[in-house]
Order: sequence, then C-alpha cells, then structure tokens
Amino acid sequence: MDVAGESSRVTLAQVAETAGVSISTVSKVLNGRQDVSAPTRLKIERLLEVHGYRRTTRAAPEAPLIEIVFHELDAIWAMELILGVEAVAKDHGASVVLTESGTRHSPGAEWIDGVLRRRPVGVILVFSSLPQVFKQQLRSRSIPFVIIDPAGDPEPDVPSVGSANWSGGLAATRHLIEYGHRRIGIITGPEDMMCSLARLDGYRSAMTTAGLEIDPSLIAFGDFHVEGGCAHAKHMLDRSDRPTAIFAGSDLQAIGVMEAAAARGLRTPEDLSVVGYDDVAVARWSRPALTTVRQPLRKMAEAGARMLLRPGGPEGAATRMELATSLVVRKSTAPPAGTGPLVQTY
Amino acid sequence: MDVAGESSRVTLAQVAETAGVSISTVSKVLNGRQDVSAPTRLKIERLLEVHGYRRTTRAAPEAPLIEIVFHELDAIWAMELILGVEAVAKDHGASVVLTESGTRHSPGAEWIDGVLRRRPVGVILVFSSLPQVFKQQLRSRSIPFVIIDPAGDPEPDVPSVGSANWSGGLAATRHLIEYGHRRIGIITGPEDMMCSLARLDGYRSAMTTAGLEIDPSLIAFGDFHVEGGCAHAKHMLDRSDRPTAIFAGSDLQAIGVMEAAAARGLRTPEDLSVVGYDDVAVARWSRPALTTVRQPLRKMAEAGARMLLRPGGPEGAATRMELATSLVVRKSTAPPAGTGPLVQTY
Repeated sequence: MDVAGESSRVTLAQVAETAGVSISTVSKVLNGRQDVSAPTRLKIERLLEVHGYRRTTRAAPEAPLIEIVFHELDAIWAMELILGVEAVAKDHGASVVLTESGTRHSPGAEWIDGVLRRRPVGVILVFSSLPQVFKQQLRSRSIPFVIIDPAGDPEPDVPSVGSANWSGGLAATRHLIEYGHRRIGIITGPEDMMCSLARLDGYRSAMTTAGLEIDPSLIAFGDFHVEGGCAHAKHMLDRSDRPTAIFAGSDLQAIGVMEAAAARGLRTPEDLSVVGYDDVAVARWSRPALTTVRQPLRKMAEAGARMLLRPGGPEGAATRMELATSLVVRKSTAPPAGTGPLVQTY
Repeated sequence: MDVAGESSRVTLAQVAETAGVSISTVSKVLNGRQDVSAPTRLKIERLLEVHGYRRTTRAAPEAPLIEIVFHELDAIWAMELILGVEAVAKDHGASVVLTESGTRHSPGAEWIDGVLRRRPVGVILVFSSLPQVFKQQLRSRSIPFVIIDPAGDPEPDVPSVGSANWSGGLAATRHLIEYGHRRIGIITGPEDMMCSLARLDGYRSAMTTAGLEIDPSLIAFGDFHVEGGCAHAKHMLDRSDRPTAIFAGSDLQAIGVMEAAAARGLRTPEDLSVVGYDDVAVARWSRPALTTVRQPLRKMAEAGARMLLRPGGPEGAATRMELATSLVVRKSTAPPAGTGPLVQTY
C-alpha cells in the first residue's frame, strides 16, 4: 500500500494499517495519551512524520485555549507577555493556559504530551528554539506555534517575534556618548544568548562610530540579575581608570550597578551614569528612575498571538517579525562630572 | 413525577422530562453551550437548582485545568498568585488557565459560560464575592471553587483564603510608634474594601493602645496606586502639623508617599518614615528600600489550589483560612528627627 498516496493526504486508517495497529491507537498517540507503549508511539510518530500527516483542522473548539509556555514564569517580564496574549485571546473568546517548563532554551519533554492532550488553538513559546521532534508533533496535530524570543536567537523554520537588540544596544550607548562619556562599560547578558551579543555589537558600533576606544576590561557578560550586575560593576568601579557610565543589559542588572556605585560612594547619575534594558516596572520605580531601552514585550506577545490566530496559521506569515526598541530617558544618566550637558569632545 | 425523589439524586432525564426538553438540551446547558434559547436555559437552570442537581464527578480529565480568574491581571501582585497556583497545579499534572473578567468585586456574566465549557477541575477566584447564580451553576456542574481574597471580604458560604489585614495594620503602626513617632498618618485602601477598613482599624488600635490621639485629618482612603498615595501625602505634608510618619495601605501608595516627600524637600526616612503593605517586588527595589507588611500571596494561592484539589473538594474544608502577615523592616523607617532610636515618650 502506498500510504502517502500521490496527491492525496495520508489518512489515519492508512497510518494504522502500515503500523499494524488499530485506528484508536493512532488516535491515542495523536492526542498525547499515555496508554500506548513507547515503541508503538515512536513507530507511529515516525510514520506520521514520514508521510507528512496533518490532522484535519477541527471546527472551532467550544472552549478555545491559547497556550503560553515559559521557562521561568517569574521572570520579571513574564507578566507583560501574558497580558499581550490575554488581550488577543479575549478578542477571540479564547482563554490563556500557562505552562512553565524546560530550560532557557527550549521546553521540557514532559510538556509535549500535555499540550497534545489540551489541544490549544495555538502555542506561544517563550524560548529561542524548539526541538525538531516537538515541531513535527505539533505540525502533525495542526497546532500552530510561534516563538516569542526576547533572547533573539530564532530558528529559521519557526515563526517568531523578537525585538531589535542591536539597535537597542546602539541607542543606549549613543545616548551616553552624546552626554559626553568616553569611558563606557557594558554588562551585557549571558554569553550564550544572541540578544547579549547583539546588544554588545550595538555598543561596539556606537563606540567605534564615535571614534572611541573599546576597552575589553570594560566588557562583561552578566546573568540579567541584580547581584550579577552589582558584582561586575564593582569590579569595573574599582579600577583606577573607572568608567563614568555603564550600560547594563537588563533593568535588574542596572539596579545592581547603582547598588555597586552606592557601595563605592558614587552617586548616580552625578558620578556614574547607568542605562538599563527592558523597561520593566522597576525601571520607573527605582531611585533615580532608570534610563533604559524599552522592549515592547506586550506588543511582541500580541503580535505572536495574532499570528497564531490568522487564517492559515502563522506558517504562511513572515517567519520573523522584529519590533523596534526605543530609548526611554529618565534620571539615571547625565553628563560626566566636570562637563556641561551635551559637551562632545570627540 | 417527583423529580427530586426522596433520597435518590435527580437525574438528567428527570430534569429534561420536567422541562419538556430533550436530555441533549439539558446537557448543552450544563456544558455552557450557547445554542439553547435564553428562556429554556433559565428554566433548566432553575430546575437544576430547585432539585439540587449535581453532575456525577467525572473520571480525572486527560488534560486537567485549574482556572484562576482576576479582575485585573496586571495588578502588581497577580503574578505571585499565579505562581502559587502554578506550583500546586504542576504537582498534580494540571495546567493553569487565566481569565480576566468583571469588576473588583466579582467576575462578569460572560465568564460563567466559558468556565462551564472549559470544565476545569477547579476555579480560584481573586474576588471578594461570587453572585449566587454563579455559585449554583458551578455547584450543579461539580466544579469546586475557592476565593482568594486579599480584599478581606469573604462570603460565609464560600471557601476562601485571605490574610490578616487587621494584624498587618496593627504591626505597621506599632513599628512606627516604637520608633517614637506620635503624629502618624494613614492612607489606607478604597473605602468599599474590607481590607482597607481592617488595616485602618489595626492602625486605630495601635494608636489608642499607645495612648496616642487619632487625628481624622491624618486618615485618608487611597486607591492603591502611586498617584493616589502621592496626592494624599502632599495634602498631609502641607499641614503645619505634618505627620512624621505615614502608613500607606499598599507598596505603590508608599512609593507615591516617598515621591510626595521628595517633592516637598523631605527625606525618607530622616524627615518622614513610610511603611507600605504587600511586599511586592518594587518594595525591595525602591530607594530607600521599603519597610512593609508582607502578605503571603503565593502561599495564599497555594493554599487555595490545594483546597480545590483535596478529595471531596473545598466545601468540606474550613470555609475561611486566614494566613498571617508579617512586618519586613527595611530602610524607609527611622526614629523621627530630633529623637534617638526607640525613644518612647508616651
């Protein structure tokens, strides 16, 4: 039997016959049920993949769910993403399901069975990547998915929404240069995240374009948390040729930098200017209020949710959407001590 | 026909016969489906209620959902509650569905049909109350529910989890009195929320017990937001006999109070001590870091979710659980200027 047919779609019955199992067993595997042996599941998943099986799109479910999956639900920006998805879901009479799973890079193995059982109308993944086998399983069940990717490392074959990290790094650094700073440090994010590298490259470009020297001892990779920002900043501030400004790759790191400055008896912004990244709520409430690069997290999530729900699903859309970042100038930046405002000496 | 029977439970067939409709119509109503006319739905709901119909408890669903319903998903403490529910859900292989609906007091009418269709294993409501008709509809579908009630105004017949608002108000005020403050203002929450009144009464008790006069012009009802806290505080600080300390009924209000102080050239805590309420993340990151009353929001949500999932549901449990609040002393409180620490002059 030629299960793939020529132009016709493979059916459940054909997959079942080829696998030598009942249709109900294939159906159980499609629905993420646990009562099928692992070897049989594997065999059926392979056949589904080889023959490009796609579940017929269902009628609109009575209680549609949009699933959003995080590695770290209590990341400070998670709520912004949830609010974006919730706004779009509400407009479509859908509810939002939250799942916390996996590592910073991709969801855990236990997640896939759950989502196959829940059968959401779509999945928003807050991860850089999705294992190939998950993609295949979601596609064969006709569950569309979009990656929201603040980390900036999307895979080419997955629809994703990110923001302009390089431009953000450039804008933050330019702002400091325009204030007259020349010794500018950067504490970017973790070394294994593309967003960290993009922001660092934006910093480098701004420095180089302005004819400023890049001192490798003023470049650090942080962990996006307060403590890491504080530790790296202390290291930089203890140098005899300390920087007069530090661009921190997240608002929390920036708060850590201000703590380090205070611990060394330096005032922000008089003795040290600080720029954050993200513009989460703490940026407004820190004292001094933080100058930062705004990531449009809520809009990113809205865009992702809309991609899911568009007719034909997200796969027909552009595979990568990148929303603009913008600099929000507050009170943590100023010209360096001993210069007037906007004195540019280069 | 005696549809209620004597000791036997009323069946779907009996309700259908009494209503003069098919069993499938009754079933549609039970499942929140929209394709039944409003008068028929109403008639069936009434019969379900009159005869105390309870859907037979189902076998464990394949993709169990716990639903959490908020009025305001972006309330600053919403994430803490979500994390508490998520932790318990994860332990039980369940997922969390978020819904935003209604007013501060109860969910909106559109919510009930959605939840009947989704059929979660239980519902956590972040509201003070639930309309009687909603309670009846959830009970007839055997969907257990618990109210998480930071507002402190539970109904007697609904299982709920709150925290000790009166004790929180007492502890905050006592702390200020122990530092030697005598002119202490309070900006509590909205006048129509019991938590506001309980915190205010705690303040009154602390003042009275210490033999201090309560000045009505130093009592204000706020809105739990920064701007409201700022406006009320300016009013108090502009008096010739201004307070040396203000207890704000939320952390955001407390931040507003510190802004008002700064706007009037007063330092926190040297010239004005400030105590917040909630201990959300901004309390740690504000400068100075905020002395505040900690509400155990995550634990409250965990307790509520566990009540839902216990065998027999929450109705058999104590109807009201109140978790303790605790004072977290940080940097926004100090003895009033001109006194040493812990000078008690009363």
